[in-house]
Parts: sequence; structure tokens; C-alpha cells
Amino acid sequence: MDPDEFRRHGHAMVDWIADYWSTVAQRPITSQDPPGAVAARLPLAAPERGEEFPAILADLDKVVVPGLTHWQHPNFYGYFPANISGPSVLADLLSSGLGVQGMLWATSPACTEVETVMMDWLAGLLDLPERFRSTGTGGGVIQDSASSATLVATLAALHRASGGQWRASGVQRRYRAYTSTQGHSSIEKAARIAGLGADGVRPVEVDPEAFGMRPDALRAAIEADLAAGDVPAIVVATIGTTSTTAIDPLPEIGAICAEYGIWLHVDAAYAGAAAVCPELRWTHAGLEYADSYCFDPHKWLLTGFDCDAFWVADRAGLVEALTVMPEYLRNAATGSGAVIDYRDWQVSLGRRFRALKLWFVLRWYGAEGLRAHIRSGVALADRLAGLVRADDRFELVAPHPFSLVCFRLRAGDEQSTELLERVNATGRAYLTHTRVDGRYTLRMAIGAPQTTEAHVRRTWELISDTATVLVGPEGRHS
Amino acid sequence: MDPDEFRRHGHAMVDWIADYWSTVAQRPITSQDPPGAVAARLPLAAPERGEEFPAILADLDKVVVPGLTHWQHPNFYGYFPANISGPSVLADLLSSGLGVQGMLWATSPACTEVETVMMDWLAGLLDLPERFRSTGTGGGVIQDSASSATLVATLAALHRASGGQWRASGVQRRYRAYTSTQGHSSIEKAARIAGLGADGVRPVEVDPEAFGMRPDALRAAIEADLAAGDVPAIVVATIGTTSTTAIDPLPEIGAICAEYGIWLHVDAAYAGAAAVCPELRWTHAGLEYADSYCFDPHKWLLTGFDCDAFWVADRAGLVEALTVMPEYLRNAATGSGAVIDYRDWQVSLGRRFRALKLWFVLRWYGAEGLRAHIRSGVALADRLAGLVRADDRFELVAPHPFSLVCFRLRAGDEQSTELLERVNATGRAYLTHTRVDGRYTLRMAIGAPQTTEAHVRRTWELISDTATVLVGPEGRHS
Ligand SMILES: Cc1ncc(COP(=O)(O)O)c(C=O)c1O
Ligand SMILES: Cc1ncc(COP(=O)(O)O)c(C=O)c1O
Repeated sequence: MDPDEFRRHGHAMVDWIADYWSTVAQRPITSQDPPGAVAARLPLAAPERGEEFPAILADLDKVVVPGLTHWQHPNFYGYFPANISGPSVLADLLSSGLGVQGMLWATSPACTEVETVMMDWLAGLLDLPERFRSTGTGGGVIQDSASSATLVATLAALHRASGGQWRASGVQRRYRAYTSTQGHSSIEKAARIAGLGADGVRPVEVDPEAFGMRPDALRAAIEADLAAGDVPAIVVATIGTTSTTAIDPLPEIGAICAEYGIWLHVDAAYAGAAAVCPELRWTHAGLEYADSYCFDPHKWLLTGFDCDAFWVADRAGLVEALTVMPEYLRNAATGSGAVIDYRDWQVSLGRRFRALKLWFVLRWYGAEGLRAHIRSGVALADRLAGLVRADDRFELVAPHPFSLVCFRLRAGDEQSTELLERVNATGRAYLTHTRVDGRYTLRMAIGAPQTTEAHVRRTWELISDTATVLVGPEGRHS
Repeated sequence: MDPDEFRRHGHAMVDWIADYWSTVAQRPITSQDPPGAVAARLPLAAPERGEEFPAILADLDKVVVPGLTHWQHPNFYGYFPANISGPSVLADLLSSGLGVQGMLWATSPACTEVETVMMDWLAGLLDLPERFRSTGTGGGVIQDSASSATLVATLAALHRASGGQWRASGVQRRYRAYTSTQGHSSIEKAARIAGLGADGVRPVEVDPEAFGMRPDALRAAIEADLAAGDVPAIVVATIGTTSTTAIDPLPEIGAICAEYGIWLHVDAAYAGAAAVCPELRWTHAGLEYADSYCFDPHKWLLTGFDCDAFWVADRAGLVEALTVMPEYLRNAATGSGAVIDYRDWQVSLGRRFRALKLWFVLRWYGAEGLRAHIRSGVALADRLAGLVRADDRFELVAPHPFSLVCFRLRAGDEQSTELLERVNATGRAYLTHTRVDGRYTLRMAIGAPQTTEAHVRRTWELISDTATVLVGPEGRHS
């Protein structure tokens, strides 16, 4: 495809996306396709001869679109938001078009330097502790996901906990990782990948009302492991748990980590974005204790997947844990020690120019625009919580400091399960579920920039009307 | 940015890229910026108020472009090619615009099903063993990189070698990984991440002429480890090593792995793409022994980073090793067992719709077009090797079965080092180096679709003229 063909087809592709965004609100949110339907619409083998671009575009509507669940629909409230925005999409297009590799500073200096500066900009916007800035001994890097960030933190923690033996000798003792019972599944996955096994993860009890980690339970778990001769290596605390956006008490947890010399990683995958608003920074109190911290701009900061922002307080320790230097990657800049080679901060070697997404998003919206975005989600969640509270058939099951509201029918699990299924089956709204205290709970995560008060209100009407069919206007049906 | 603004700015972004591609050949390939120059051109903090798109685009040329090394320049011969193409860039744009998450089948069925079918298409194009097709017990998945593929293979191998204990208990014995002395650094990195330590990787001697792994040396290493009570877990064989594109003898290595029950992973990161051509499939002989295999369409198959194609023969074993099932990810489709959830095939949870890149590229070029692309690279490399051979001052240092040619000045390391530096300093061509038998060697990797015979010929003239300055027309200067 030569530059002129690219120009022509590129305009068509941009127009297709603009049309998709303009019409996505009219589509059923979830696909009606049963398993195998999309595959059945595709030929069994690649074509022998090349095809024209318009033919490919036409198949998009026939083959792919019916099989999509539309994450950018204004009534998509499932999981956590994963919202894109125009500037993010265009910056990613630019990254694809430049096609540079940022594994080393030398392989495209701008790719590394823009990233370092963007991570400092973000640290400033969230008012993160000084120790995470590149101007000191720390620094930030873009990971593909919070899962990878937790893995990388775990590896650096193991290296430190082993007194620097881990890199050469591997896992030779029983290292332990701690997180609350509400910690994300990626924490167990990271521990397993790192060779600690699922048994290496100690689930710590939470407070029964707000679901934050109990510091006394953490201390007890650490003491028990030490008594058994095991090595506490890392505590993963969460700001905004996946089920209910609970906040672990960092000041107490951090003090315990400092006392025992344990690496503290703070996973704020979803809720970290909230710290762009000064009035929400209380959620990050105690972060100065953390050895590493991450949040996902690809969740709630208008930046497309993949973009996880990860910081460490001691970049030298991280690099020592992860670097390998074969001859074919040696170069003068690396040798000088004056540059950052981000391949040593992550699992993969190759990396694309993802910092462009942050650059475009931060400039297009400005700090003001990002704060307005977060505030709108929080206000809508508050509004929704008010509607839930006003309806006696429902109960709110957890605090809602951010933009996720968790609720259920008092009538019971069966009714709540049925409610979720019926609402989702309409295709007009999409929510997912969790269990809180063992009970089935609906999660409604607000956060798309296109979600307005009217969307939330109408979705609540849909939920409420469906509840009436299931449990009647008084909530007494069984 | 509303859909209409996106349309307008999107067209401008597409045009910017088309212009960049049209002019990239006239730019110096490497950046002249010293460390810190790009960062110095950026403000210290994000703007408070949002800015206009044209202002951002204008800064691109001022701030970013001077700091780029241009990987898409026709005379970029460093590392391995990382070539993009129009259809790949546009498919990636589409993926960004749709903004769907493919972690589960249920979170957007098309994202999973197109991927499964594309991996089968690719398996067909490369004529991979049946055991890797999704129609049997195997299947393919897109990883971000060959590094991640090797890591995932290592984890599945550990789970199998432990008799299924690894998942719960972690690394409790001394597991060993084997690769040749020419194996890529990502193999050691994967072993370290997995908790085996650098010492857990056994470098196996290679044949002194062709640099393929010596099966007798592999057997000896395995026997020695067994005698010491260690557990051989995985052999990583390479088709197309990074230094010289050497090919490990899979038929012999595979038989040894089968005999000892060791997982065989085949890393064809760069050279795998060559198997689209029947006349190059001899390089893949013995692949039927492999438990897993990967290659990077993002290297030599016109697909932008990130896109590594990874297959396993036993998908159930892989999923068992990697799955974690928290309540908030439970859903009916997963429960039915009828669908693939690709989050269980990789490190991260989230994943973007990368299969679109393969779909667009395979359809735009067709099998024919991809074969023509590979053949052109191989023919140009052959041509270049002829030029090197005809010049007595130089020696070819390894066979060149693909499109990488390795050569050096007979005069010595110092002269070869100086030669590379001077050629690269012109900005007119870019090569990187390695060491072969301890001696400094230039690598010239051909593979960009925009590289023509004239580019290769003129680059050789530049190299040859520079050599004349350094060692004279007879190559006798010291
Ligand atoms: C608290 C928390 N941590 C980690 C993750 C994983 O995020 P990612 O997909 O970026 O790995 C999530 C995802 O929802 C999360 O909620
Ligand atoms: C043989 C081999 N394996 C693995 C890799 C790593 O590739 P990636 O950047 O996809 O991790 C390379 C990169 O050049 C390679 O040559």
C-alpha cells in the first residue's frame, strides 16, 4: 500500500470509526452471536491473492461487528470502564505509522524520552510522592497492563528479598506475597508466574464494612510466615478493589512493610486516575511508603488499551533484577549509563511508542479536562447511589468513593442474578457482577465520557422496572 | 473530541503519516540528538487547559521527529526488520477505535474468534504441524512479543515437568532450561522471571561453522543435570538466531526432547515468516516434535508491533497452568467450556483486538504477496552476500539462509567497529553488530518492503568506500 493509497484508505477508515462512534449508542451492547458464529463467517484459509481495501472494509460490518460487545457504548457499565478518546486513538495511529521500536534509548531516543517526561507529568497530575519522579532515584514506565506491573514489582521484590541472589539463583526459599482477600486475580497470577505458586499468596482478611485490608491481620500473617521460616517478599495493597473499589489503609500497611523491610506495591489500576482531583487524593494517603505504584490510564483516563502507568522508587534495583545484555544490544549510549533503556523495566524486549497516547490525551484535555471527566463519573455514581438508596427493594453493599456502585436486591441471590441477566439481555445496558460477603452483587461502573445523567437515569429505570417484574413493586415476591 | 472533530483531525493525522512515509528516505536515519535533548524540548508539566489538535501536530515535527531513529527508512538494516504496512496500520487504528477488550470470549466474541481463525490461517500459510491447529487439541494466540511467548512456554513446561504441582507450589526443585549459546537473551530473561535464575539456563555448544545447537552437547547437558538431581524442563531451539540466523537441528533435538520428556519450544521470532515460501520450509524440518512454536509477524511479515504468533500443541495444559477464576470474571460462556478465553494464554488480563492486523495484512497481500515479500528479502541478501564475497577485504562469517548477512573486515575488530560507526554516522544507512567466535561482526538485515536492489547496492558502495578510507583498496592498512 503506497502512501497515496494509504491516504485514501486511511480517510475511509477514520470515517468508518467516526460513523461507528456516532451510531454505537443505537446498537445492542452485547453480541447475539453464539460461540462459533464469527468464525463460521470467515473462510478456512487466507486468500491466495490480495484483495481490495473496500472489500475488506465491507466484511468488517458483516463479519466482525455483529460479534462485538460494544465497550464504548454509553450504557456499558461492565467490569471497569476502558474508555478511549479521539486524541488517544490518533496518537496510537501515529505510533503505528512511525513504526519505531523503543527497546533501547538508542533505537529511537524520542520514544524513551517522551515516555519519561509523560510519566513525570502524570506523577505531577496525581501529586505522587517525589520518590517516583525520574528527577530522583525513581521513575515511571508504561507497562501493557496492571497485571504486568504487579509481575514486575514482584520480581524486583524477590531480587531485593533475596539479598540480590534471585537473579542468578532463582526462587530458592519460600517467598510470600500478601494481598487482601479482595486483591485482583492478577496478584495470584504474578506470584505463580514468578514461581511462588498460588500457595505463596497469603490472602489477608478485610474490614467487614468497607472491605479494606486489616493491618492487624497482615501483621499476623507476616509473623506466622516468619515463624515458619518463610520470607515475606511483597505486600500488594489496593486503592479501588475490583469488586467494590475498597481502599486498603496504606498508612498502617506501609508502616508494617517498613518495619519488616517488605516491598510495598500499590495497585490502583482503576482508581488511580481519581487522584487527578485534589478532593479525591485522600484515597492515596500513605503512598509515600510504597516501593512501586501503578494505575491504568486505559481504564479511567481516556487512553486506549494498552497503557498502564507504573512507577518505582528505586529504578536501579528494578533494572538490576531484569537486565540481560547480549552483544547485539550493546551500544554507546547504554554503555555511558546516561540513558534509560526501558526494555530493562518490563518483561518484553520490544515496545511501541505508547507515550504518544499520553502526550496527546494530556494536551488535548489538559489537567482541567481530565478532572472534569473524573468528577462527572463520581457525580453520576453518587446520583445512582441515591436512586438505589431510595428504593427499599435494593441495598447498597459497599461505599462508593469512585464511580462504581454495588447493589443487590434484598430478595436474594436468585433474584439478583435474574435481574442482571434480564437487564443485559435487553441489549440496552450492560452490567457485570461480583460476590460480596458471598452474596451475588450487581456492579455498575460509570466512567465513559459519553455517559450522561440521562443514560444513568434510564438505565436505573430499566433496572427498577425489571425488578418490578421479578419481585413486584414492594420487593416481596420470592 | 466528538466524531466530527475526530473525522477532521483523523484525516490530518493520516495525511501526516502518508507524508512521513513519502519523505522518510530523505531523512538521516538516526537521530543527532544527545541524551536529554527531546526531554528538554518538553514542558515540565502537563498543560492546565486543553489545547487544539493542530498545535499538538505541529509540536510533533519540532519535538519528536528529530529524536527518532527511522525504522521504516529503506536503508534501515539494524537488528531485525520491524516492518509495518498500510493495512496493518489501518487495522490497528480500527482496533483502537473499537476499543473492545478481548480478555474473555464473552467480553467481545469477535475479538477471540477472529484471532483463533487468523492463527489457523497463519498455521496453514506456514504449513505448521496439524497439532497446532485449533481444530485439534492445540491452537494459536497472539502474544505481544516472542519474549512473552518464551515465558509462557516456560511456565507451561514447568507445570508439566512438576507433574501439575507447580501451579500451587511454585518452583520447588532445580528446573533447567536449555538453549544454544546463540539463543536470544529473552530465553534467559524468561527463565529468570519464572524463578529459575540465570543459572537455571544451560547454554549448549554450537556447531562451529553453521552455529546450530549440537545435539550431542544437549544430551550431555541433560544427562549431567539429571545426574545432579535437577529437572530438565524445557529446551528452546531457534530457527534463525539473532546473531547470524543459525538454524538448530530440530529433528535431532526433538528426538532427544521426546526421549527425556522435555518440553520443546521453538523460537523462530524472525525467521518463521520465511515458511510462507515452500522453498524455505526446510528450515522448519522437525517442527512436529515441538510443544510450542512462535514467530513475530511484527518482524518480517508486514505487521506492526506488537504481534507475536504463538502456538501450543496442548492448549488445555497451557490454560491449566495460567488460569485464575475470580467471581467478577465468571460468565456463562466460560462456564460452558465451549469458548476460548485468551487471558488464560498470556501474562496480562486485558488484550486489544490485534487479530485485525493479521486479517487486514493477510487479505491485502494474499499468500502470493507475502511470499513475494519474503523472496525479495532473501534475493537481496543473496545479492549482497555476492558483493561481500567478491571483495577480498571482507569475509562472510555465517551462512545466510534468510535475509540477514553477517560480514566483517579481515583486517580486524577495530577496523570493523570503526567501519560500522562511520557508516552509521552518515545517516544514510544503519546497521548493527554482533560478535561471532568472539570477533566483531556487522549485521545487515534486509526486509523492509521499501528496500530495493538499488538501496542495497548503494549501501554496499558506502560500506566499501568507507572500508577504502580505513584499510585501503587492498585491505592491508592496519
Ligand atoms: C484492582 C485491579 N488490579 C488489576 C487489574 C488488572 O488490570 P489489567 O487488565 O491492566 O491487567 C484490574 C482490572 O480490572 C483491577 O481492577
Ligand atoms: C531469535 C529471537 N528470539 C526472540 C526475539 C525477541 O523478540 P521480541 O521483541 O518479539 O520479544 C528476537 C528479537 O530479535 C529474536 O531474534
